[in-house]
Amino acid sequence: MILHGYYRSTAAWRVRIALNLKGVATGHAFHHLRHGGQRAPAYARLNPQCLVPALELGDGAVLTQSLAICEWLEETHPDPPLLPGDAWQRARIRAFAHAIACDIHPVQNLKVQERLRALDVADAEVTGWASWVIGEGLDACQALLAGAPGPFCFGAAPTLADLCLVPQLYNARRFGCELSHLARLLAAETACNALAPFAAAAPDRQPDAE
Amino acid sequence: MILHGYYRSTAAWRVRIALNLKGVATGHAFHHLRHGGQRAPAYARLNPQCLVPALELGDGAVLTQSLAICEWLEETHPDPPLLPGDAWQRARIRAFAHAIACDIHPVQNLKVQERLRALDVADAEVTGWASWVIGEGLDACQALLAGAPGPFCFGAAPTLADLCLVPQLYNARRFGCELSHLARLLAAETACNALAPFAAAAPDRQPDAE
Repeated sequence: MILHGYYRSTAAWRVRIALNLKGVATGHAFHHLRHGGQRAPAYARLNPQCLVPALELGDGAVLTQSLAICEWLEETHPDPPLLPGDAWQRARIRAFAHAIACDIHPVQNLKVQERLRALDVADAEVTGWASWVIGEGLDACQALLAGAPGPFCFGAAPTLADLCLVPQLYNARRFGCELSHLARLLAAETACNALAPFAAAAPDRQPDAE
Repeated sequence: MILHGYYRSTAAWRVRIALNLKGVATGHAFHHLRHGGQRAPAYARLNPQCLVPALELGDGAVLTQSLAICEWLEETHPDPPLLPGDAWQRARIRAFAHAIACDIHPVQNLKVQERLRALDVADAEVTGWASWVIGEGLDACQALLAGAPGPFCFGAAPTLADLCLVPQLYNARRFGCELSHLARLLAAETACNALAPFAAAAPDRQPDAE
């Protein structure tokens, strides 16, 4: 298997964490998003969305979309579980993950920032846009954890929720979001970063890091 | 159970289709998104994201995020399946659904349009933004179906992919997207709209339709 990614893509980062937690080894291919590597014809044939990540399986099949890849990993490599518990618990974990993967990340990512600049929106307002999306989104995420035990988002072990949270907090800091009131989220992040599968997936540990 | 929605919310519409396909009856509560109903304190307590849909279960528990609700329905009411087939097939269906639910819909929705207007982006350019996001996204979606048998997105019965596609095509028309080259997607839509569970979920069939 080959994971196609970029060191600072938070979507690819989620999949790196999931692979590490499951103990699944893959090769890696890197595509420089700021240089348009994701739009190169060879990669566009692999993933018509021209986004990372994509997971190339040994038989030529390609999986796209970070959470669809994580669900596939969960079905094919169940231990340790990314979606533990009963249907209700799993729904809460997925809702938290989707609150980040649908409602925060795609609305603040590079493509949206480039489009805003093309509309002559000033740099400071582009940064303000990202920090608005992330700030409002993470406030809601902390509220979604009401009643869930720590130290991770949903209990004593990391889940799909945590592997979305950690990369999004990194992006929050890049865009200058105020985070001090998000104690529950920061505590989960601290618990995650103490684990080797999370540490090894961090952007600065990737071969294409700048 | 009570489904909280809005007739024209494509995310709530997905869940209405899923409930109808599974034969699960619920009550309905409507929140007028253009009048800010989703930000009313009583609803914000149910769903801290202040988005529809939310599914209130009988015991006071609340599920949020349309695809997390659909996954919960799939686990608790497996027939007919929204995610049929083996892990690879399920991953393809989820990837298509997420390509819409993550990378199209949240980047063109009402909240983003309002924010663009607050940055003094002209109305025509706000419409252009939506049609850019939807057009580029649906082109990729059609490519993601390469090799998948029809008439639905992934074979002889509707799946999670179709219940994301149909509402997104409705939004595409609202924003004037050119669709004639998307024959594979339009054929799947035609197959869906011939089914009662899809027809009954359409916006103009909802009690809050304007």
